[in-house]
Amino acid sequence: MNPGPSVDPAVTDLLGLLAYAELGSFFRLTDDAALAPTLRDKGRLASLAAEEQRRYELLRERLVEYGADPEEAMEPFVEPLDSWHARTEPQSWVESLVKTYVGDGIAGDFYRKVAELADPGTGSLVETVLAEESRGAFISETVRAALEEDPALAGRLSLWARRLVGEALSQAQQVAVARPRLAALLAEDGGGDDAGIGDLAAVTRMFGSIADRHAARLKAMGLSD
Amino acid sequence: MNPGPSVDPAVTDLLGLLAYAELGSFFRLTDDAALAPTLRDKGRLASLAAEEQRRYELLRERLVEYGADPEEAMEPFVEPLDSWHARTEPQSWVESLVKTYVGDGIAGDFYRKVAELADPGTGSLVETVLAEESRGAFISETVRAALEEDPALAGRLSLWARRLVGEALSQAQQVAVARPRLAALLAEDGGGDDAGIGDLAAVTRMFGSIADRHAARLKAMGLSD
Repeated sequence: MNPGPSVDPAVTDLLGLLAYAELGSFFRLTDDAALAPTLRDKGRLASLAAEEQRRYELLRERLVEYGADPEEAMEPFVEPLDSWHARTEPQSWVESLVKTYVGDGIAGDFYRKVAELADPGTGSLVETVLAEESRGAFISETVRAALEEDPALAGRLSLWARRLVGEALSQAQQVAVARPRLAALLAEDGGGDDAGIGDLAAVTRMFGSIADRHAARLKAMGLSD
Repeated sequence: MNPGPSVDPAVTDLLGLLAYAELGSFFRLTDDAALAPTLRDKGRLASLAAEEQRRYELLRERLVEYGADPEEAMEPFVEPLDSWHARTEPQSWVESLVKTYVGDGIAGDFYRKVAELADPGTGSLVETVLAEESRGAFISETVRAALEEDPALAGRLSLWARRLVGEALSQAQQVAVARPRLAALLAEDGGGDDAGIGDLAAVTRMFGSIADRHAARLKAMGLSD
């Protein structure tokens, strides 16, 4: 396995973005675990955190196999992802669940993009990661149940979800400006013929694509756009 | 695998103690990772943290197989271990290394005790855990190298190590009073004929045994007792 310089640099970007995102989720879930009220919940959340760490490890190994410097590949995404987390601190358990669902969803879109573009080895890595992702159904059911008990929550959580995606898009905009190739690659989805168009069109397409999928995920949780 | 009520309750105690100790190490190493100055060090420490989480998981599963409530088994050790960590916050990287070495060492003694007392399945779990423990040599070499560069460190680190074991013994004393069977079991080592003696003798023996091994570990790092 030595694809060397033939690896699309945008794929390296995507893997770096996902690797740092998984490391960030590891830290965030560990914070949640430390604050969990019972020993059992602490242990459960620690186990979810360790799962994120394993994905980080897999993605990092893949970058090494591609001949990339993994830390260099992650570096451009450190500030945007850290900022996103700092600007979207959940104030409750259900907000934390919605944030995980939204974050997992966007990450999932990016993983699928990697699978499309990369070699079969990386494709099967992505499939493994996505198959493991069993918490999506659990979260959307839990949020729906919380809404049934307290329908007034819906408005607040819909606003929260809007803020989550708004802050994500604001960070993405900065990334897109700095990495136009990555933006073009993510924007191709559904179109495919605008790889040559200027940055602005690519960024707009990418945002549209993230927002469309976000709306579908909100619906799955019983929330409105 | 259904040893049922024939499992020595002191073995359940030991497994509960070790499980919570591993969970505590997971949180401590994740804190270290969050503070690490480089992305590479963050990743390395996150990987060590995830290793602790896997051990916690293995020990917890073993408690379930023994028919014990794992959280109940851990509960008596939450306060003593949390107190130990709170009273021994490392002020530098090398103090943190010495703390890990001392903590790993005491945990290793307890693991070996479990292996002696429990069924072969648990014995092989312990051997797996101890074989994985590759960081001992790395830590003692790093500390020795730091001492060669700055011999004046030796006095300060020896004091630090003394404080670490002093605080550990002070917590152990409270545990020993609350769980005399566990104290007797740990004290048996090297003697073997005092299982019937009163609590005080057992506790004294246990302390002596911990202190002897601690002294050997200090020497391995180039520190004095």
